[in-house]
Amino acid sequence: MLDLLIKSARLLGESAPRDVAIKEGRIVEIAECIEQEARHTVRAEGKWLFPSFANMHTHISMSLFRGLGADLPLADWLQKVIWVLEGEFVSPEFVRDGALIGVAEAIRSGTTLFMDMYFFEEAVARVAEQAGIRAGLGFGILDFPTKVAKSPEEYLQRARSFIQEYKNHPLLFPVVCPHAVYTCSPQTLKKSLELALQEGVYLHTHIAETQQEVEACVEKFGKSPVEHLHSLGLLGEKTLMAHVVWTTEEERELIKETGAVVVHCPESNLKLASGVAPVSDYVRRGIHVCLGTDGPASNDNLDMLEEMSLMVKLQKGTQRDAKAMDARTALHIATESGFKAVGIKAGKVEVGYEADLILLDVQKPHLQPLYDPVAQLVYSAHSSDIDTVVCKGKVLMEKGELKTVDLQEVLFLAKKWKDRIESFLGSKILN
Amino acid sequence: MLDLLIKSARLLGESAPRDVAIKEGRIVEIAECIEQEARHTVRAEGKWLFPSFANMHTHISMSLFRGLGADLPLADWLQKVIWVLEGEFVSPEFVRDGALIGVAEAIRSGTTLFMDMYFFEEAVARVAEQAGIRAGLGFGILDFPTKVAKSPEEYLQRARSFIQEYKNHPLLFPVVCPHAVYTCSPQTLKKSLELALQEGVYLHTHIAETQQEVEACVEKFGKSPVEHLHSLGLLGEKTLMAHVVWTTEEERELIKETGAVVVHCPESNLKLASGVAPVSDYVRRGIHVCLGTDGPASNDNLDMLEEMSLMVKLQKGTQRDAKAMDARTALHIATESGFKAVGIKAGKVEVGYEADLILLDVQKPHLQPLYDPVAQLVYSAHSSDIDTVVCKGKVLMEKGELKTVDLQEVLFLAKKWKDRIESFLGSKILN
Repeated sequence: MLDLLIKSARLLGESAPRDVAIKEGRIVEIAECIEQEARHTVRAEGKWLFPSFANMHTHISMSLFRGLGADLPLADWLQKVIWVLEGEFVSPEFVRDGALIGVAEAIRSGTTLFMDMYFFEEAVARVAEQAGIRAGLGFGILDFPTKVAKSPEEYLQRARSFIQEYKNHPLLFPVVCPHAVYTCSPQTLKKSLELALQEGVYLHTHIAETQQEVEACVEKFGKSPVEHLHSLGLLGEKTLMAHVVWTTEEERELIKETGAVVVHCPESNLKLASGVAPVSDYVRRGIHVCLGTDGPASNDNLDMLEEMSLMVKLQKGTQRDAKAMDARTALHIATESGFKAVGIKAGKVEVGYEADLILLDVQKPHLQPLYDPVAQLVYSAHSSDIDTVVCKGKVLMEKGELKTVDLQEVLFLAKKWKDRIESFLGSKILN
Repeated sequence: MLDLLIKSARLLGESAPRDVAIKEGRIVEIAECIEQEARHTVRAEGKWLFPSFANMHTHISMSLFRGLGADLPLADWLQKVIWVLEGEFVSPEFVRDGALIGVAEAIRSGTTLFMDMYFFEEAVARVAEQAGIRAGLGFGILDFPTKVAKSPEEYLQRARSFIQEYKNHPLLFPVVCPHAVYTCSPQTLKKSLELALQEGVYLHTHIAETQQEVEACVEKFGKSPVEHLHSLGLLGEKTLMAHVVWTTEEERELIKETGAVVVHCPESNLKLASGVAPVSDYVRRGIHVCLGTDGPASNDNLDMLEEMSLMVKLQKGTQRDAKAMDARTALHIATESGFKAVGIKAGKVEVGYEADLILLDVQKPHLQPLYDPVAQLVYSAHSSDIDTVVCKGKVLMEKGELKTVDLQEVLFLAKKWKDRIESFLGSKILN
């Protein structure tokens, strides 16, 4: 008995519709007509089957801050808005509710894996587990005290307990998340690495996001950020580095040699005025590049389709070279490359690959006529054109309807936090 | 009797819902509760009322080429793909069918005015008239022969007849469209100006789109493109200039002094690798800036919400200044500024303004919580969140359903042209 059968979907490279059979989370057969019984059947006539997206850098619970301080630069936005609000509000309840809103949005926009860095990640884990979405989750590790912990040792201890709790989960995997070179001392960074090595998990950090960060790092450590990370031993195939906007020639070579992974976040980098990362150069060098939205408070959404479209156009336009990146490369970066960075064989509609899939409804004026489905997905489609989402063989959305998250609960929780946060803001001036 | 009554909409600057009364195409009253009878009532509980968008530069019928040659630079894309296909296919039928697809998309994404430049504009006029959408339409004027005309004189003659036919239409207005400085001789440009002055209509042209265009113009005429236009007398308040990516300090001052209008097309400029226009500098100087999508073949859609969002983020990110442009300025540029450029008092939800409006459905995870409706519209929303569209008091879409365009006809026509164009492409190599 199959777990899922997708009937009559259009596939890239196939001139006629195909049936896709899924068992134990994987694609087991693709054929003109599959007659086997299945627990669930999705009819896909006229729809295109693509891999789902891997959002490799976010702080999903920050959905609760969406749109606040919308036009401030990174430093002001963090110091005058986000950290003030986090100091007041962050709690397991906050993280849980924010994650539920974010997960609903992520599923609706075709994402089946997200890499999260925040506080109280157990709360995110429970939401992701219930929603049936993959997640790589890590407690942010900092040198300064917050509500979560008082010292680097305490953060590391919390990270360790979290890792031990979620180490063998089928959908979730714990990650070690030292926040950044400007918030973690060399010692904290080294201890984070030790923890990741001991537990055999991935490292996920922010790096080289702004020019100010680079300047401060050079001044303090005599090295630019990626070099600094490398000198502490942190660069390697199991290290995911978000942003990587500002790098020297030497740093790019270090990234290439060590196999460290770049997570490009173009929308957040634009919105916070950080700059445009030279990702087409990274790709040309053979660096492993994947894509993330960053938190929904600096983006201001979790929409990977928008992120992918922006990435490719931004490379063409800012390098003034229409061949700087093409739609196919963009799709690869937003899908297979992300899954691969954390050892998941997904991101292709092929037998043997994990069944992480979306169906795109193309019967819309803005997607017609349809000559080139990849160009249409990358340049013309919106997340609302995603009709069905499958994660590891399980249907998370069908015909636009969420199957594992209650939309009414999402709207209720958003209202609850809006009222709380607005009543607090009433007594503060943030902008 | 009112023509339209919108009940219980959320408005910017109002803490409680408002009713909006519309008569003879205009907003005549905004109040807590309006009890007057109306021919049609739209219930807007929980939805936000915003002005609709003015798409000030497009070639709407090029929807039929959407996604073709998607990753080519401007010159190759034009010469190897678009001009080849236009040579084969452009006809009144092509222009009419492409316009219908484009108009359906434009309405669905909240646009109620588009400025079009193409061939056989009578066909676009009939579609726009039937759909009830505003349009400024102009025959492209060129020096070289096409199917449409053999000489500049013939193009000008066609433009003149078209102007005379549509001069006093309530929704449509004819425009003179010399294509560009690299496709029109100084004499053709001057004659275009004469025609516009004689008939009292707007001029609409492409200018300073690529660095190559600037270099060629300097070489040929000893002046960069905007200077060249100015020396021929073409800069003025009734001149709309699409692109304006590459300008000197002097040219910016000329634009400011003459009151000529810049139509920024950021997405097309990125995708065709033309560059990023310095629009926040233009805005700071007091230049009249509005926004356009360009044709759906180089974008690859007609989505003004996406265009607006991209514009503001692109200015922040490429200038590395989060204050380079804010969400409110972006909304103004995409709405009121566009209408104003062609003398239409629309783009605000205020008594006395034309009723060109959209309702935004915010009951979606990616729009929650909602603290700042303008930031949410600009940074988080998608065109699919637009629920209702009103143009000059007439409902063109309600609850996502098109009222004046038949969606089935749109899909049928798209299929018809896909088959024709693909069968032609089967015998050619375009990429």
